[in-house]
Amino acid sequence: MFGKYVDQVRKEKPLIHNITNYVTVNDVANVLLAIGGSPIMADDKLEVEEITSLCNGLVINIGTLNQRTIESMKLAATKAKELNHALVLDPVGAGASSLRTKTALDLINQTTFDVIRGNLSEIKTLMEGQGKTQGVDASADDNITEDNIDELIHRLGEFSKEMGSIIAVTGAVDIITDGTQGILIYNGKKEMGQITGTGCQLSALIGAFVAANPKNKLEATAAAIGTMGLAGDLAFEALQEHEGNISYRNRIIDTIYHMKGKDLDQGVQYDIKR
Amino acid sequence: MFGKYVDQVRKEKPLIHNITNYVTVNDVANVLLAIGGSPIMADDKLEVEEITSLCNGLVINIGTLNQRTIESMKLAATKAKELNHALVLDPVGAGASSLRTKTALDLINQTTFDVIRGNLSEIKTLMEGQGKTQGVDASADDNITEDNIDELIHRLGEFSKEMGSIIAVTGAVDIITDGTQGILIYNGKKEMGQITGTGCQLSALIGAFVAANPKNKLEATAAAIGTMGLAGDLAFEALQEHEGNISYRNRIIDTIYHMKGKDLDQGVQYDIKR
Amino acid sequence: MFGKYVDQVRKEKPLIHNITNYVTVNDVANVLLAIGGSPIMADDKLEVEEITSLCNGLVINIGTLNQRTIESMKLAATKAKELNHALVLDPVGAGASSLRTKTALDLINQTTFDVIRGNLSEIKTLMEGQGKTQGVDASADDNITEDNIDELIHRLGEFSKEMGSIIAVTGAVDIITDGTQGILIYNGKKEMGQITGTGCQLSALIGAFVAANPKNKLEATAAAIGTMGLAGDLAFEALQEHEGNISYRNRIIDTIYHMKGKDLDQGVQYDIKR
Repeated sequence: MFGKYVDQVRKEKPLIHNITNYVTVNDVANVLLAIGGSPIMADDKLEVEEITSLCNGLVINIGTLNQRTIESMKLAATKAKELNHALVLDPVGAGASSLRTKTALDLINQTTFDVIRGNLSEIKTLMEGQGKTQGVDASADDNITEDNIDELIHRLGEFSKEMGSIIAVTGAVDIITDGTQGILIYNGKKEMGQITGTGCQLSALIGAFVAANPKNKLEATAAAIGTMGLAGDLAFEALQEHEGNISYRNRIIDTIYHMKGKDLDQGVQYDIKR
Repeated sequence: MFGKYVDQVRKEKPLIHNITNYVTVNDVANVLLAIGGSPIMADDKLEVEEITSLCNGLVINIGTLNQRTIESMKLAATKAKELNHALVLDPVGAGASSLRTKTALDLINQTTFDVIRGNLSEIKTLMEGQGKTQGVDASADDNITEDNIDELIHRLGEFSKEMGSIIAVTGAVDIITDGTQGILIYNGKKEMGQITGTGCQLSALIGAFVAANPKNKLEATAAAIGTMGLAGDLAFEALQEHEGNISYRNRIIDTIYHMKGKDLDQGVQYDIKR
Repeated sequence: MFGKYVDQVRKEKPLIHNITNYVTVNDVANVLLAIGGSPIMADDKLEVEEITSLCNGLVINIGTLNQRTIESMKLAATKAKELNHALVLDPVGAGASSLRTKTALDLINQTTFDVIRGNLSEIKTLMEGQGKTQGVDASADDNITEDNIDELIHRLGEFSKEMGSIIAVTGAVDIITDGTQGILIYNGKKEMGQITGTGCQLSALIGAFVAANPKNKLEATAAAIGTMGLAGDLAFEALQEHEGNISYRNRIIDTIYHMKGKDLDQGVQYDIKR
């Protein structure tokens, strides 16, 4: 089901503008190249509108935000929306500080993003308009379980309709919903949480997938999440005994570099809930 | 002797706030995850106090400092101290510019850090209140030899008592002292100086070790240094002929990912001087 | 022909000040260490003149430039020129935004750089004083072909004489000219464009090669480009089936770590045109 979306990314080679954190930016650039897209990073207010105009999508990631770049994020989002570009928000650490929460809320209130992707506590923060997370890398309380999943999908769907954005919550199970349909993705390993930036990489991939597949943004988002999760599975299997989180990071990006539509069709485990 | 400290880090999973340079920040985040901690990076003055309040430790690294982040460093240090969090300073390049020297001196005069870790020329700069280093990566004149080591330990101990901070000087031999006791660590390879950021990674590890082991900060600091040095030794042995500094970097972090207390107990070579 | 230049870098161990983008900065630092140099990154206007004074060369890369760092670039360039240090400009994304184009033009009009290195569209932008590029990573329209190469060399030579700078255009074939002599380098693989930052790394290498070989800056620049291209060739041959762009990046830097003069003498494919 998802294979055609990755093939389309490789065909379209979308250029993705990233305003993102300096922790994981190199991996973000390389994963976009691995999937067949191109990255461009620019965050000065004097150039973000012009840069984003050249692109097919904009991914805003608020990790290591600052007052200067917040202004740039807002300008770039407005311009990208005006041009109908793919528009993704990764509200990294929303809930961990008022600045992050406020910035994420300001952005989604100002501009309708195509996709908002975060872990459960970040998305909850946006839903509650307030909150508290346990740091940036996914933590245990973000787990999605059988007990809470139906209620969760419902609540996320309501939020999706309210915002006009696809909501993607990633964790042990990933939930993607537009309020009408929910897609669950079961791929991925908990050890991906021991690498910095798998979430940041995923948000960038979503930008590329949605930019290349504008007619079905929900499935494109799920395909991006399936790509990351499947790469996490395959890379984990290939890990040698002495290898740790850096090798796992490297193997995931290398796996994405070779990912084909048929791999996704065979390997992504999913459910659809209506 | 040092094994219990790493086991405690893996048990406590400390969350470490890093205000650090953008050169090595990805490796810093991954090494903290490798040792079982969690990283969070945030440097805007509007959020650093709130972010650091959520954490167990703060590591300030002045590489690529700027006027904006210097202000954030000062605010975060004050807040972390108030909350009795583990507090580590890495005065990268102190002596290479007045701005770095002044910032490092301002920080240690303003706030009592638990640990100050640098190479010899950086620490000397702080001791002299002035100085000149040969760039950021450890250089030859930072070597600690048998001829100068006793005098050095004495001088570093005096400085430690004056500042109320553990002083850790890393080089061919590493010296850790609180003015009462000196610990020497003999692990590590000179080739670690051909990787950017092994010092930055180490300072972050010290933050995690001290946060998880507040009752013996001196030995916790030495354990962190032993972890890095031993990982350097083991990774070096495992290097294949065609591999260079990037593979060495990767192997060190991977080795830390697998490091157990018993590995430290067996592999760290040290002396204690009173 | 080029071997002696790399041997000289390893002997001189130049310290290179980089004001560069945060996307590829870690790779830039590691590649400088791999070739036997030392990196230092500093971008605050209060310290760049002092830092650059300690160094042997300055490499300015305008990827992720901002108004604060642009000011620092100008101050550092002026100081480095005053001290006769090796001075390299990488006009990343010139043509993609007015800010980048203007900054690059301001820099080359203000200071005579030893070398200006970019892809064809970036260099064309500088030549035309205006332009439009397709993002930061090298794209298809930057290809240099047999049909356009003689005319290109001529035009680049004119530009070189006008600016007083060696012009290096990298692509399928690399052209280096000082207006009197043109050197063509045929090494390198198109797959290097699927790694972020091979261009940034190359510009940093040029800084190290020119700093260590001030008597023949043209050949030193060509030697740096030959080093990167040859490393790209050798690393590509060594790639295993499952490896992708991250492994390729790692293997290139590792290969540079082991690169000797005799490897360059044997492996660099070049032509000289007068």
